[in-house]
Amino acid sequence: MSSHRLAVIVLAAGQGTRMKSDLPKVMHPLAGRPMIRHLIETVQGLSPEKVVVVVGPGMDCVAEEVAPLTTAVQSDRLGTGHAVAQAKAALGEFDGDVLVVFGDTPLITRDTLKRMLAERRGPKQPAVVVLGFKPADPGHYGRLVVGAEGLKAIIEWKDGNAEQRAIPLCNSGVMAIDGRRLWRLVERLSNDNAKGEYYLTDVVALARGDGASCSFVLGEPEELLGVNSRVELAGAEAIVQRRLRLVAMDNGATLIEPDTVWFSWDTKLGRDVVVWPNVVFGKKVQVGDGVTIKGFCHFEGCTIGDGVEIGPFARLRPGAEIEDDAHIGNFVEVKKAKVEKGAKVNHLAYIGDARVGAGANVGAGTITCNYDGFDKSFTDIGAGAFIGSNSSLVAPITVGDGAIVGAGSVVTRDVTPGALAVARGNQMELAGWADRFRERKKAEKAKS
Amino acid sequence: MSSHRLAVIVLAAGQGTRMKSDLPKVMHPLAGRPMIRHLIETVQGLSPEKVVVVVGPGMDCVAEEVAPLTTAVQSDRLGTGHAVAQAKAALGEFDGDVLVVFGDTPLITRDTLKRMLAERRGPKQPAVVVLGFKPADPGHYGRLVVGAEGLKAIIEWKDGNAEQRAIPLCNSGVMAIDGRRLWRLVERLSNDNAKGEYYLTDVVALARGDGASCSFVLGEPEELLGVNSRVELAGAEAIVQRRLRLVAMDNGATLIEPDTVWFSWDTKLGRDVVVWPNVVFGKKVQVGDGVTIKGFCHFEGCTIGDGVEIGPFARLRPGAEIEDDAHIGNFVEVKKAKVEKGAKVNHLAYIGDARVGAGANVGAGTITCNYDGFDKSFTDIGAGAFIGSNSSLVAPITVGDGAIVGAGSVVTRDVTPGALAVARGNQMELAGWADRFRERKKAEKAKS
Amino acid sequence: MSSHRLAVIVLAAGQGTRMKSDLPKVMHPLAGRPMIRHLIETVQGLSPEKVVVVVGPGMDCVAEEVAPLTTAVQSDRLGTGHAVAQAKAALGEFDGDVLVVFGDTPLITRDTLKRMLAERRGPKQPAVVVLGFKPADPGHYGRLVVGAEGLKAIIEWKDGNAEQRAIPLCNSGVMAIDGRRLWRLVERLSNDNAKGEYYLTDVVALARGDGASCSFVLGEPEELLGVNSRVELAGAEAIVQRRLRLVAMDNGATLIEPDTVWFSWDTKLGRDVVVWPNVVFGKKVQVGDGVTIKGFCHFEGCTIGDGVEIGPFARLRPGAEIEDDAHIGNFVEVKKAKVEKGAKVNHLAYIGDARVGAGANVGAGTITCNYDGFDKSFTDIGAGAFIGSNSSLVAPITVGDGAIVGAGSVVTRDVTPGALAVARGNQMELAGWADRFRERKKAEKAKS
Repeated sequence: MSSHRLAVIVLAAGQGTRMKSDLPKVMHPLAGRPMIRHLIETVQGLSPEKVVVVVGPGMDCVAEEVAPLTTAVQSDRLGTGHAVAQAKAALGEFDGDVLVVFGDTPLITRDTLKRMLAERRGPKQPAVVVLGFKPADPGHYGRLVVGAEGLKAIIEWKDGNAEQRAIPLCNSGVMAIDGRRLWRLVERLSNDNAKGEYYLTDVVALARGDGASCSFVLGEPEELLGVNSRVELAGAEAIVQRRLRLVAMDNGATLIEPDTVWFSWDTKLGRDVVVWPNVVFGKKVQVGDGVTIKGFCHFEGCTIGDGVEIGPFARLRPGAEIEDDAHIGNFVEVKKAKVEKGAKVNHLAYIGDARVGAGANVGAGTITCNYDGFDKSFTDIGAGAFIGSNSSLVAPITVGDGAIVGAGSVVTRDVTPGALAVARGNQMELAGWADRFRERKKAEKAKS
Repeated sequence: MSSHRLAVIVLAAGQGTRMKSDLPKVMHPLAGRPMIRHLIETVQGLSPEKVVVVVGPGMDCVAEEVAPLTTAVQSDRLGTGHAVAQAKAALGEFDGDVLVVFGDTPLITRDTLKRMLAERRGPKQPAVVVLGFKPADPGHYGRLVVGAEGLKAIIEWKDGNAEQRAIPLCNSGVMAIDGRRLWRLVERLSNDNAKGEYYLTDVVALARGDGASCSFVLGEPEELLGVNSRVELAGAEAIVQRRLRLVAMDNGATLIEPDTVWFSWDTKLGRDVVVWPNVVFGKKVQVGDGVTIKGFCHFEGCTIGDGVEIGPFARLRPGAEIEDDAHIGNFVEVKKAKVEKGAKVNHLAYIGDARVGAGANVGAGTITCNYDGFDKSFTDIGAGAFIGSNSSLVAPITVGDGAIVGAGSVVTRDVTPGALAVARGNQMELAGWADRFRERKKAEKAKS
Repeated sequence: MSSHRLAVIVLAAGQGTRMKSDLPKVMHPLAGRPMIRHLIETVQGLSPEKVVVVVGPGMDCVAEEVAPLTTAVQSDRLGTGHAVAQAKAALGEFDGDVLVVFGDTPLITRDTLKRMLAERRGPKQPAVVVLGFKPADPGHYGRLVVGAEGLKAIIEWKDGNAEQRAIPLCNSGVMAIDGRRLWRLVERLSNDNAKGEYYLTDVVALARGDGASCSFVLGEPEELLGVNSRVELAGAEAIVQRRLRLVAMDNGATLIEPDTVWFSWDTKLGRDVVVWPNVVFGKKVQVGDGVTIKGFCHFEGCTIGDGVEIGPFARLRPGAEIEDDAHIGNFVEVKKAKVEKGAKVNHLAYIGDARVGAGANVGAGTITCNYDGFDKSFTDIGAGAFIGSNSSLVAPITVGDGAIVGAGSVVTRDVTPGALAVARGNQMELAGWADRFRERKKAEKAKS
């Protein structure tokens, strides 16, 4: 049934001058991924046959981000109608619905888009369905003029009379258009207006002039927040974070101070996870059940098993795998390393390119010396081993199961399972030296 | 005078399914202690003769938490009236007032409960005093129908007509009941209703049927917040934290960003304490006067004297005692250790099971090696001693007063007062080795 | 033109009892500088000929803070009129405008003060211009009674009738007064009122009695927030921080969670700086363009070049200079040290009194041992050098360009450019020792 075919045009050519950034506006991230990616994921859920993303000249990074979707370049900025027209070559004649969405309005929900499509495909078969909303402050948004026959017109603020300006229903710009009419409508758009631009909103008047009906559905102001500045970006981030926090709590995690926990869009938390204040979950983090995160932690690209205790002040970098019941304590960095079941790395340590065997204990201040300036080498700590505090493990190196490394050792050769290895200097003492040193220093200070 | 005798029944049998937790709902903490403990402390301040806590089957941890208070088990979940009935064996006939409170409404204030009891004992001598409140959104709460003669009825939302549903005064469930009537009222409760439950609220109608009057007092919506989900738990935590922050500021502490400071219920701060953003006060922390906490700190079970400077990025664990004018700096962990007057531990150090004598200076990167995998041993650093940077002090060990430990030493034997101890390897140099190494590595990289 | 001459009297004698502090109220900081300093900067922008600050007895720290401005001491606290009178000796007869502002109302904007002066110098030439405001809750503020002829009277709350108390326009206390009238008005103030104080507000009635007109201008409630308690101090801090965050975002920085970033009044951020949650910018921090700050960072007195990556959990102390493209990683402290172009200090290190040459790599756990208890010494790390992990560099010391220091070394003598230096103990091994140790310990534990 042709009315259920869908194509989407994403308008993403805006420079975003007010962002004052070298990065195209739609590439600025929310919850760790570019805002255009949020939007693409939302529309992909509608199973469109085609998606065309209209980008500005030189926006290769946007094209890469949305690949393998088709992109079309809008070289001149002549308005939203002109932007849509740039998608014609890529989209061609399309005998279904065409949804037009905006890359800088990334919070729009799939549910709202579905309601727009349902309206398009409903009994009235409107040629154009516009998404309206009622913001707290309608300001200078265009207004939707609605009558018994549906959407009558979209009036730009500057063209509106007092009565029209008093209308609370505003135009979001998002539209679902009958694909069979789309190009014939777009071709007839005119730039005979104050800004000399081709406005997509004029398709409503054109369609009605053709005798077709138009319609609207109502969205939430929150989902229609446009991001044109860093302040608006922060506002959108706050909305995304609130949504993610609610999901985490609904799934059975305690966020003691939800506003101090930052999630990536893909963070996964288990049940009875307790998150103390000030935790950042970067991309690709999975946390099991019954985990306690003691706050002041920074995670990225890591997995955390069940029953783990972690923090405060812990950093897990990509490739950290913390198995069940392990402990990671304060001022500890773990990178590309497996900390096996029940192992402990509790204080001021760097564990990189390594395995810490099950039940092993890594003392305070231990460093895996994994880098020689050119290559990374592996440190293998056996199950049940005990690494004394402030040790340096010079990789590549293996400490056997159950071995002990004496505190303060610089270990450069493998340690046999069950053995003790010590590598430190001899202690010597100069009696009274400290007293004499102090007297001398004090005398110097007194002179100067 | 019998009317001033008081017993309290705490209903705490709810599973809390929406918490999605293995922990009973009332055991989830607020400001670091279980919510039921907050409630128990509140009612204990009313000096009740008896407190009976009604718990669900298998909730041993709740019974332990409230011990030595009596608990009664509600095996079947047949409603609030049934829950109260389970307390009968433990409470017996009681010739005073009986207050019924809810374990998942932990923010109720003592002042409000006192006002309920004053009303019960007042001139009207109502058989039942119900605590009402006027929430911003009354939603589906039961409503209190009030007339000149006092409280006429409690109408459940589903049983109410439009006029009754428009009443803004809602039922909190909390009641003060004449003990001489209690069990006769409870025995007559019926489960002849849609849910087949025995509702405690029906005692109002029964009492009035007996010719007794009923009454209500008004509480604040905030104190009647019920905690049934992790989101509501976070909401309750926010209220508790706001109260604690106001107390700290009123007592003369500056919280530069109050919303970023998290308190335990028992935190004590002195006057002219300055707390920079992002500090967590765990349980049992006491801070003296004139202390500067530079932010990003985590404290638990510790005492901090007057004039101390601490942080940023410091962690004090249980048993840390920081005496007057001492300094604890960044990336420093102190556990079960006394840092005496004016001593300094300023950078990247672990001080555990130790004493740092008055005026001593512990260099960056110093580690007390206090654990051998089985036992903890003590490190004693004398007054005025100087521990060179990156030293390892292998406990048990004593560094005498005024002694100096050379930087990078691994100290395994006691150091005499006033002596210099050095324990490190000899330095050797291979001229040109680094240059040759780089050339070789680069050649390898070029090949591969 | 005499009407454009300006003098300012700053009233700053209040004890601030409700602050519960040993520090005078106006010395409590906002965004890192005393609130009186904010106010002084604001009025200095008006180019006054004279500024007199009226302080309380013993407030030497305030006099120092405002030096070289003149201070006058108000020994007795007899009201605002009396406080202004104390400035007479210092100010003398002044043939221009006199602005009276309050040290505990530090958020007042220069724009508002300019509007007051414009009104004073305008066609009506009012003798007194009072700054009014309309707070959300007018409470017990004095009210401005206004008529066609301008400001008719200031009515104290306690003296007002119901009609006057209903006036929403409140008195801020801030005034611009015709200097030619000032002292003659002040001399005639009376203390014949309930509190026995001389109120400056009475000059309005006196001026009108002299046949002169008075006037008012309207300020924003936010800028007129008075700071009398730590809670109000926190409220003012929140306003200042919000202003600073907006400026940073408008200039092209992304603050992912703006509410978790704390700025000093003088922080400077470049364009395309990305600030992750939980960062504190102390005094005197400058950040270049394209810098990524990964959160949990604390900066003070430092400069950060373009393209730098920093954090999480980094602390830069005064004198840290991080040049372009350098990396500073987790649990790293840098103090009075230059980290040159492209150099890396990525993990658990202390770099103090040092230079890290361009492209050098400092391994995890490296410590510059810069202090001997009396003097600080310098560590010079050459360009392209590689410092192996967990090394101690005992200053004064030079590691030559391109040299390598072996991991775990304690380096006490200079290292030749291009050489390898190693300074560690020899590794020895006792086979089976760890196994025997564990058996013995377990046996001991079993006995005890």
